Amino acid sequence: MSTQYQKQRMNKFVLFLSVLSISLCLQALDDEADLVDKNELNRLFNINYDGKVYSGYLKANTEGTAQFHYMFYPAPVDALNKPVILWLNGGPGCSSLQGAFNENGPFVFKAGTAEFEMNQFSWTNFANMLYIESPITVGFSYGPQGDQSDESTAKYNINALVDFFSRFTEYKKLPFFISGESYAGIYIPTLANEIIDYNAGLAADSRINLQGLAIGNGCTDPTECTDDADPFQIHVYKFYGRHNFISEELYEQILTVQNDCYGVKDGQCKELADKVEVEVSGKEQDQIKFNPYNIYGYCFTYTPEGSKMSQKFGGMRSPNEDSDIPPCADVQGLYHHLRSAEVRNLLKIRQQSAQWAVCSRTLGNYHVNPKGSYYLYQKILKNQIRILKFSGDVDAVVPLTGTMYWVDKLQKELYLATLKPWRPWFVHAQRDVDPDQNAGYVLDLDGLTLLTIRNAGHMVPLDKREESEIFMQKFIKDELFP
Amino acid sequence: MSTQYQKQRMNKFVLFLSVLSISLCLQALDDEADLVDKNELNRLFNINYDGKVYSGYLKANTEGTAQFHYMFYPAPVDALNKPVILWLNGGPGCSSLQGAFNENGPFVFKAGTAEFEMNQFSWTNFANMLYIESPITVGFSYGPQGDQSDESTAKYNINALVDFFSRFTEYKKLPFFISGESYAGIYIPTLANEIIDYNAGLAADSRINLQGLAIGNGCTDPTECTDDADPFQIHVYKFYGRHNFISEELYEQILTVQNDCYGVKDGQCKELADKVEVEVSGKEQDQIKFNPYNIYGYCFTYTPEGSKMSQKFGGMRSPNEDSDIPPCADVQGLYHHLRSAEVRNLLKIRQQSAQWAVCSRTLGNYHVNPKGSYYLYQKILKNQIRILKFSGDVDAVVPLTGTMYWVDKLQKELYLATLKPWRPWFVHAQRDVDPDQNAGYVLDLDGLTLLTIRNAGHMVPLDKREESEIFMQKFIKDELFP
Repeated sequence: MSTQYQKQRMNKFVLFLSVLSISLCLQALDDEADLVDKNELNRLFNINYDGKVYSGYLKANTEGTAQFHYMFYPAPVDALNKPVILWLNGGPGCSSLQGAFNENGPFVFKAGTAEFEMNQFSWTNFANMLYIESPITVGFSYGPQGDQSDESTAKYNINALVDFFSRFTEYKKLPFFISGESYAGIYIPTLANEIIDYNAGLAADSRINLQGLAIGNGCTDPTECTDDADPFQIHVYKFYGRHNFISEELYEQILTVQNDCYGVKDGQCKELADKVEVEVSGKEQDQIKFNPYNIYGYCFTYTPEGSKMSQKFGGMRSPNEDSDIPPCADVQGLYHHLRSAEVRNLLKIRQQSAQWAVCSRTLGNYHVNPKGSYYLYQKILKNQIRILKFSGDVDAVVPLTGTMYWVDKLQKELYLATLKPWRPWFVHAQRDVDPDQNAGYVLDLDGLTLLTIRNAGHMVPLDKREESEIFMQKFIKDELFP
Repeated sequence: MSTQYQKQRMNKFVLFLSVLSISLCLQALDDEADLVDKNELNRLFNINYDGKVYSGYLKANTEGTAQFHYMFYPAPVDALNKPVILWLNGGPGCSSLQGAFNENGPFVFKAGTAEFEMNQFSWTNFANMLYIESPITVGFSYGPQGDQSDESTAKYNINALVDFFSRFTEYKKLPFFISGESYAGIYIPTLANEIIDYNAGLAADSRINLQGLAIGNGCTDPTECTDDADPFQIHVYKFYGRHNFISEELYEQILTVQNDCYGVKDGQCKELADKVEVEVSGKEQDQIKFNPYNIYGYCFTYTPEGSKMSQKFGGMRSPNEDSDIPPCADVQGLYHHLRSAEVRNLLKIRQQSAQWAVCSRTLGNYHVNPKGSYYLYQKILKNQIRILKFSGDVDAVVPLTGTMYWVDKLQKELYLATLKPWRPWFVHAQRDVDPDQNAGYVLDLDGLTLLTIRNAGHMVPLDKREESEIFMQKFIKDELFP
């Protein structure tokens, strides 16, 4: 090897180092611009959090006119040896800050209050947590108003994600997971699909390192959350029947028409659908009569801004302005803080961002894909992206009845082998009561694990923080449940 | 009218008054002998209860060799204008003091502790509450050891009841109701049957004034709690299936054999029964994995005496001595107090009474009637005895699936008209959260009301005190639910 050559190499190396340090500097600066002031955070939220919190905007289209608000909580300990998890809430039109502040973030609201408390089961214990408010008009995210769809949301989300990793480059090599709940059962597989296509054209080290999807009480099958599923919500009705919220007689009638009423808006199907509503909620249907997100849980109705309790959703979506708050949701803490000028300032919210709401009132025409996200599972599984399908078992909004249905269908259609049969799983916690009670049930198929969480509703990490930390950590590590 | 005649009448009246006052005196004395010392009660239980409490024994056979321990709490206010309710717990072999001290009495244990607290929803708010420990060997009740049966229990119970009213005569004219739960679904209708027969030979004012039965999560149908139902507990398995404690595949298999496996102990039925156990509790079945009495509730396992957690019951009954404590039951308060010498003394427990246990270890050969109590309903309804069939909807021990099954069968067989269809019922309470959530569902048939209590398990007045006070009061007053 000639010295000339060595010199050239050395020069190149110095040049590389310079470029690297400049880019690290720029990136560091860029990161720091979104860093939330720790003292002010702790003062406003009355907590004592020592980790970093970033809040800012990500470019959701190439023009940069669509800007998605994000919050990023690096793991306080050993962040660069932990995976990144993107969390998305559902709707469509609901804010992922619900996940951050009510579910799996490091500080969360005490039930029924606007007071924060530390969450000892925060997912930041084992991961770097990224929350993106998506799509346009959701939460603090803004951009061109107009028609949106499952497809446009997926495009926006991958743009925002690419922007995120272009700025937080040191996190890009880490294993990446997408999690979320409810309508994120559409957002997550459609985003995974975009990532698979995005990665296909790139060198290994430029790819988004997607390892797995963990979807909670998620919309998946066409019979679940599509427009065609609205008039006759077969899985919801079956769930009511199974839990004795309707008479046995009506339950049996529902079972006899279960394969025929999808998409049917009149005749016997409509009559039965109406009858279910009356039996479940009584004749005065101007208000919900129990918490559909946790049929045995509390119903919270107060918000400081006096937003009145919403009418029952038609399907998953809010039919009018009064219904921006999901029935019984415990959102007063979110409203109290996220509508305050001081918190907007703390989180560097731009003037373009609207007043925050838990679910967007101005989503506009949102086009739901009549295929749901079921059609994407074959491609996802083929790309070796692991799937955890978790489900609280007392949720009537996207109930287990539907999940069981499509998981069974998927297994049969794709000939997925059963790796480990149905069995209970456990949380071996130190508690005064209920030691070693099962936390739910689990079934491992080839590529997909179905996990139920006993006595959890729609928002699993809200209802069962400890259990959620445990199962998510196991999934991340690719450990089987016992 | 002659003065002579008037004088005679006056003498007779004076004589009558004298006899009356002597008998009142005697009866008062008899009552007072069983009156529990108020100061000592309040001291030992660390409470402040101002009402009367009686504790003593009732003759359960004509010879007087069988003595049933009872406790009686007259309503503290206006007792003689309120009905008498006899409360019976189940088993067979479990003590009704569980009802008194854990469920609907005026002072009850704080969950998971041996500390009493006042129960603002006590049934003594609207009734005089009588608790009898039945049959022989249960709790503090004693008598000739030997075979017992549903029939002997009914005979003992009516004897004890007649003895009670012969001593507390001022309560005899009051409307009388029988309530209880679980295996009391057998005790109550069989006792009602005895009362109907007893009354048939008596003048109106000598009869037991039975008005109604209120049976909670009660054994009724042959397919529920009989020996033949033991090997294949169809309603329990269906309940597990409906609540996703077993796989859909197994649930569907169970449904296909549901009419064929009653009483079958081998072949496919046994295989499926075994499979249910494995799927629900895992392969190591040495301990229960959740609280079968409330599938979403806590599991309490500690007792001060170290009684170890029981194995899962085979059907309703404890198969061996280790299983005297129902799985997960919150009984430490009962054990702590009822095994103390001071409390035995306070409650005037006789030397003949064994050490107290929540469920008898020495019940001996108990013969379960293979007909259950279903066969008695026609006679009871014919005698205009009103029936409230209430059921917590998250109980896997005597689950709603079975109750729904036999109520439907009864309605069809007896052509019972539907008076008011299935609908929610409400507790309009002042609470911070969940105002006006439904408390469950209700269906009125001619003579029989079916009422579910949302998120209550096997012991409804333990899990839902407020709701229980409300529905029981309505039933007593013969008020329809809204």
